[in-house]
Amino acid sequence: MKFIHTSDWHLGRQFHNVSLLDDQKAVLDDLVAYMAENPVDALVIAGDVYDRSVPPTAAIELMSQLVEKVCNKLSTPIILIPGNHDGAQRLGFAAKQMTDSGLHILSNFDDMLTPVMIKTEQAGEVAFFGMPYSDPELVRHHFKQPVKDHDDAHRILAEEIVARFSNKQRSILISHCFVDGAIESESERPLSIGGSDRVSHSHFLPFDYVALGHLHQPQYKGEEYIRYSGSLMKYSFSEQHQKKGFTLVELDANGFKSAQHVELVAPHEMRIVEGELDEIIVKGKTDPKSHDYLLVRLLDKHAILNPMDKLRSVYPNVLHIEKPGMLVGVEQQMAKAKLARSEVDMFRDFFLEAQDASLSAEQDEAISGIIKQLNTH
Amino acid sequence: MKFIHTSDWHLGRQFHNVSLLDDQKAVLDDLVAYMAENPVDALVIAGDVYDRSVPPTAAIELMSQLVEKVCNKLSTPIILIPGNHDGAQRLGFAAKQMTDSGLHILSNFDDMLTPVMIKTEQAGEVAFFGMPYSDPELVRHHFKQPVKDHDDAHRILAEEIVARFSNKQRSILISHCFVDGAIESESERPLSIGGSDRVSHSHFLPFDYVALGHLHQPQYKGEEYIRYSGSLMKYSFSEQHQKKGFTLVELDANGFKSAQHVELVAPHEMRIVEGELDEIIVKGKTDPKSHDYLLVRLLDKHAILNPMDKLRSVYPNVLHIEKPGMLVGVEQQMAKAKLARSEVDMFRDFFLEAQDASLSAEQDEAISGIIKQLNTH
Repeated sequence: MKFIHTSDWHLGRQFHNVSLLDDQKAVLDDLVAYMAENPVDALVIAGDVYDRSVPPTAAIELMSQLVEKVCNKLSTPIILIPGNHDGAQRLGFAAKQMTDSGLHILSNFDDMLTPVMIKTEQAGEVAFFGMPYSDPELVRHHFKQPVKDHDDAHRILAEEIVARFSNKQRSILISHCFVDGAIESESERPLSIGGSDRVSHSHFLPFDYVALGHLHQPQYKGEEYIRYSGSLMKYSFSEQHQKKGFTLVELDANGFKSAQHVELVAPHEMRIVEGELDEIIVKGKTDPKSHDYLLVRLLDKHAILNPMDKLRSVYPNVLHIEKPGMLVGVEQQMAKAKLARSEVDMFRDFFLEAQDASLSAEQDEAISGIIKQLNTH
Repeated sequence: MKFIHTSDWHLGRQFHNVSLLDDQKAVLDDLVAYMAENPVDALVIAGDVYDRSVPPTAAIELMSQLVEKVCNKLSTPIILIPGNHDGAQRLGFAAKQMTDSGLHILSNFDDMLTPVMIKTEQAGEVAFFGMPYSDPELVRHHFKQPVKDHDDAHRILAEEIVARFSNKQRSILISHCFVDGAIESESERPLSIGGSDRVSHSHFLPFDYVALGHLHQPQYKGEEYIRYSGSLMKYSFSEQHQKKGFTLVELDANGFKSAQHVELVAPHEMRIVEGELDEIIVKGKTDPKSHDYLLVRLLDKHAILNPMDKLRSVYPNVLHIEKPGMLVGVEQQMAKAKLARSEVDMFRDFFLEAQDASLSAEQDEAISGIIKQLNTH
């Protein structure tokens, strides 16, 4: 049997004030197209469907359409848990009313202990247990056991589930947590501060497969069957070289058989472009991916007037500019003395940039006089 | 066949900073208990399930529990539309995934034109059409017809539905609007200003029954089968004498047969108590309903120190005090001259109230002197 493991959709996310909803819709369309051509037994979403507990209505509508396509048109069940970005109670509204249609939202501890059962020819009955994202405090309160951190919480939750195992079935765990030693990206919201969010993978060993969410880079930790699918798409420039998509998991009668990353590419990639302004603009004119979302690192050493406007004439979706070639703010002040670049020098740069010509001797004298006058006051 | 028509639950509503959720839960428990003893073919909710488009999670959980009790335990379908307080898209999430379980949330114009069909022995097939609450602008945009007000909008929506009638079936309309000539309460939020929200009942004549929501007083308008069930419970003191509950509707093979108001009483009633402080306190000591939510109108003519504390010693849930016996603010200033009540008179009142004794001659002289001194500056 095969199922798709995905996580961290963050529907409704904004990135540098740009809505990513159209890109998210395009990637989900690709996911649905894949499922139509390559039928699977289930679609598992390991948390962070939405970017926040009260998502924008457009994100809710997008998710509602996705659910209809997958559950109703493809007749494929969806099994999902809330992540730390989702609001469990909001997401869990009327969850029991949706199960007949194949939408399984496991949003509380009762749901956690009642697996979604899927019958398959190749692997017999497969039980999907979903562990909704929970603060340690919530686990302590519900199970009346000492819980000091996420590791304790996940140990207890896993034990509760394992106690309900049946030998006759394969058991899958869906969880949203930070497995110790796994690799972070810049776009995840920390679960807690100072490392107390780390969970040992050893709690998860008894399962046939563990579908993890939270970390945005696809990876496995400890065992090949304890995996992060990674996020649906890139959510920070630091992820520019990460492959995004979903994990295609295969089980047989013996349990875990294989896990394969299937790539999904968003219409706008997120990437970093580095160089001097002029060379970037020349390159941009023939760049077939000029509509990507860009972070531009300008290496020019001199001041530039309106670099954003200039860059956007060839790369319309430049979202952010860094100028490692120029020091700014306090550093700039300190550097100024060091480099002995006076206001007059900076004005000469500015004039060259704005007028595409150097100051004449007369102009230079005039501006030098004015600046001197201002500085003596 | 019988069904329950209810509306305007406003789950999550606050009243004078008090949460009404426990009262709402108690009333819904009574509704479910009624349905368990007196089975019906459907529960119809004509809008304003929640008090706002992003309801508190506790309200969502209460609604989720209600749905489970009615749809799953009693196997009774629920048919509901969003009202002007609800967020249609939020409420409509995964609506198609809920229909198999019997939860029908009709939140857009496509849903409106696809009736929920219920087969009954007594009345044959009954079609429930739900008209989600919509601004005139939305109707204009969707149906590409001139729509200047709510009346136009409801005429067009009703025509669209009537065009889909089948002779073989009874047709029920669910709508959330203000039928012209019906009686308002203080707790409804106006749909628009200046009377442009009024809708003629004549658009609704072709239906066998029209289950209306929005107005909080149970009533019918135009025809006995065009009815408001009224709100689940009282939501303003102006509703103190209104009967609250739901409407039990009966249909037979000829269509509408009867509509009957069934009363539900909240644990805390909302009512107004009027009188002088002393008499109210005496009465309160033996009032069996002393825990009700009260507006107290104090008829005393003199100033009273801490009336709220005094009243709450017998009526713990006094939420608001009015003092028609004493004029306040600007009116007080004007009245002061008229009544020739000086600061000294008012201080005498205050002292009597605070010390339970009159000023002595010496005290009176002292305070009169101070006030005179202050007034001359």
